[in-house]
Amino acid sequence: MAIQVVRHHLQRVKVGGRHFRTIWLKPEDQTVVQLIDQRFLPHRFVIEEIRTVQQMAEAIREMHVRGAGLIGASAGYGMYLAAVEAEQDAAAGEFDKYLVDAAAQLRATRPTAVNLSWAIDRQLKAITSGKTAKEKVALALRTANLIAEEDKEHCQMIGQHGLELVREIAQKKIGKPVNVLTHCNAGWLAFVDYGSATAPIYTAHDSGLSVHVWVAETRPRNQGSKLTAWELGEHGVPHTVIADSAAGHLMQRGEVDLVIVGTDRTTYTGDVANKIGTYLKALAAKANNVPFYVALPSTSIDWEMRDGLREIPIEQRGAEEIRHADGWSDGQPVEVRIAPEKSPAANYGFDVTPRQLVTGLITERGICEPNETSIRALFPEQAP
Amino acid sequence: MAIQVVRHHLQRVKVGGRHFRTIWLKPEDQTVVQLIDQRFLPHRFVIEEIRTVQQMAEAIREMHVRGAGLIGASAGYGMYLAAVEAEQDAAAGEFDKYLVDAAAQLRATRPTAVNLSWAIDRQLKAITSGKTAKEKVALALRTANLIAEEDKEHCQMIGQHGLELVREIAQKKIGKPVNVLTHCNAGWLAFVDYGSATAPIYTAHDSGLSVHVWVAETRPRNQGSKLTAWELGEHGVPHTVIADSAAGHLMQRGEVDLVIVGTDRTTYTGDVANKIGTYLKALAAKANNVPFYVALPSTSIDWEMRDGLREIPIEQRGAEEIRHADGWSDGQPVEVRIAPEKSPAANYGFDVTPRQLVTGLITERGICEPNETSIRALFPEQAP
Repeated sequence: MAIQVVRHHLQRVKVGGRHFRTIWLKPEDQTVVQLIDQRFLPHRFVIEEIRTVQQMAEAIREMHVRGAGLIGASAGYGMYLAAVEAEQDAAAGEFDKYLVDAAAQLRATRPTAVNLSWAIDRQLKAITSGKTAKEKVALALRTANLIAEEDKEHCQMIGQHGLELVREIAQKKIGKPVNVLTHCNAGWLAFVDYGSATAPIYTAHDSGLSVHVWVAETRPRNQGSKLTAWELGEHGVPHTVIADSAAGHLMQRGEVDLVIVGTDRTTYTGDVANKIGTYLKALAAKANNVPFYVALPSTSIDWEMRDGLREIPIEQRGAEEIRHADGWSDGQPVEVRIAPEKSPAANYGFDVTPRQLVTGLITERGICEPNETSIRALFPEQAP
Repeated sequence: MAIQVVRHHLQRVKVGGRHFRTIWLKPEDQTVVQLIDQRFLPHRFVIEEIRTVQQMAEAIREMHVRGAGLIGASAGYGMYLAAVEAEQDAAAGEFDKYLVDAAAQLRATRPTAVNLSWAIDRQLKAITSGKTAKEKVALALRTANLIAEEDKEHCQMIGQHGLELVREIAQKKIGKPVNVLTHCNAGWLAFVDYGSATAPIYTAHDSGLSVHVWVAETRPRNQGSKLTAWELGEHGVPHTVIADSAAGHLMQRGEVDLVIVGTDRTTYTGDVANKIGTYLKALAAKANNVPFYVALPSTSIDWEMRDGLREIPIEQRGAEEIRHADGWSDGQPVEVRIAPEKSPAANYGFDVTPRQLVTGLITERGICEPNETSIRALFPEQAP
C-alpha cells in the first residue's frame, strides 16, 4: 500500500482559488481524460491523464479516484475511452463485444458502490443503440459527459435541500455555529463537484450561516483527514479533525447538532452502505438524539436490493492498510509500520447502517424517510 | 509527538520467552527503578532506568508507561524515589513537605486514571506514619512493592473470574474459537503483570480453550496495534488487528462473542471511563446483544464519584497526535503527517460508557453488576 509513483503524464498545479472538478476531458485532446489523483492529497495536487480503459480501471481499483459519484463518472469516461479504442482497434463487427469486455473489466474494480454498475449499464445501453462505430463513439462521449453533468446537478440540488436542515438548527443556535459531523469523504472529491454530504455544508457556509464540521479521520485510508479536511480548508469552512473513536463522546456531550454522511449504496428500503465506521456513528446519534442524515444522488440507490445487511457486498482490502499508515515526512510520501509484522489484520471497507438508525435521506429531489414508500414517492419512475 | 530519544541509561534486550513485568527495582541498586519504555514497542524493546521522582513524572506524562494499574505502580515507585531524595536532600524537618510536593508533581501528570491518586495517597499515608527519615524510606519502599504486588495478584484473580465467562461461551462453540474483542491496551503492559482485560484471555488460552482476539488499533496512539497485538503475539494468542471503526460491523455479523475492555476510572455506580472509542463499542455490543464486560482491579474504582459523565475529567491531548501517525520505516521511528497542516484537530483521550451499556465488571473478588449495590456487596469495607 506504499504510495506509488504515478505512471502516466503528470502535471502539478496549485489549487488555491481556482475551481476544479474531479474529472474532465483534456481541452486540447478530447480522447484524453484528466482527473485529480487523490492519493497525493493533501500534500500534493496531482492531475493524471488517462488514455485507455485499462488505465481507468486501474485508477478506480487503486483509488486514484474514489467516492460513489466519481466512481460512476470515471466508469462513464472509461466506457467512452473503450469506445474510442474499439473504433481504432476492434475488428469489424466486434465493436460491441469490445465494449462488453471493457464493461466487465471496469465492473470488477470495486464491489460496493452501485454507481459503478449503474454508469456502465447506462453506457452499454447508449453505445449499443448507435449504428456505426463513429455514432457509437459520439454516443459514448455524450453519455459520459451527461453522467458527469447530472452528478454535478444532483449534488447542487442536495445542497439546496440540505441547506434547510442546517438553517432550521441555525435558527435555534443564535451566535453559535451549527456543528455537523461527517465521516470519510463524501465531498466534491467523491463526486464530480460539490459532493453529497458536503453540499449542504458548502451551501450553508456560502449562504452566510455559521457552520463547523467535525471531520472523522476515517482509518485506515484517512479520507477524512486527508481529503475532507483539505476540501473544507480550501473552501474556508471551519472544521476540526477527530479520531473516528471520538464521535460518540462528542455526541454524548452535545457537541454535534447534525450528522451527514454519504453512501456507496443504499437499498430502495433505506439501508445504507457507507465507509466502515458509519454504523457506529449512527448508533451514537440514535442514542443521543442527534439527527443522522445520508446525502445521496439517486444513482446510489440500488433498486434491486431489499435487505442491505444480507445483500450488499462488503469489500475487504489488504491487511497492510491496517498494519501501516501512510503520510508525508520531510516532503516525501512515507509509509510507517504500526503493528507487529506478524500480527494478522482484517480490513473491511464498508459497513451497513440499518434504516432504523437513519433520520432521513437527502436526495436531489428532496428529503425522504428511509423506507420504500417514502423513497418511491420521490422516484415514482422506478416501478417495483 | 515525534518519538523522542530516551535520555536515561538504556538497555536493549530481547523479550522472546523470558518473563518480564512492566516495572521493577534494579537488582544491583534498589534506588533505581527499571521499566519498559513502551513508546518503542512493538518495534524495539527498551528498558529505561528512572532515578528521580522528576524522571518518573515525565515517564508517566509522556507515556513511557501508561495504563491504569501501571500508572498506579509507577506513582508508588515515584513516591519511593522521592523519599530517597528527601532523605538525601531535604532540610531537617522538611522530609514530609518534600513528599507532599513530589505527590503534587506526580498527581499533575495525567488526569483520568484514578489509580494515580490512589497510589499517591496510599504512599503519603504510609510514609508520614514513619518517625525517622530512614523509617519513612523503608515504608515507602515496602508500600511501592506492595502496590505492585497487589496489582499483579488482582490481575491474576481477574483472570480466574473472567475465565468462567470464556468457558461458558466455549461450551456452546465446539470446534470454533471464542471471539473476544478488546480496545486499547488493558494488557500486562498496562499493569504490573497479566493485565485486566487480557487476564481472562491469557488464562483461557493457557487452559487450552480456543480464543481469538479482535484487537482494535486505538487511534491516535495505536495502543491496540502496537501493544496489545504485540503482547498477544508474544504469548501465542491468535488475534487480528482491525480499525476502530470495524467493531460495529463485526458485532453486526456475529463475529464477536464477548467484549472485554479495561478502565481508567469506574464510578462506584458503574460508569466506566476508558480509552476514547470504548463508548461506541459498548453501543454496538448493546445493539447486537454481545456481552460487554469491563475488567478492573478495585483500585480503578472511584468511591467518591457518582455520575461518570458529569464528574470524570477527560484528558485532552495534543492535536499533533491526530494530524500525524507514528511508526517505523526502514528500522527508524518516523512520524508522518496525514492531515493538512492548517487543519485544527481535537484529541480526547477517554470517553465515559454509562452503566446501562455494561453487562458486568470483572474484579479481583468476582464479577458484579454495574450498580452501587452490586459493587458495594463485593467491597463492603468501602463504607458510603
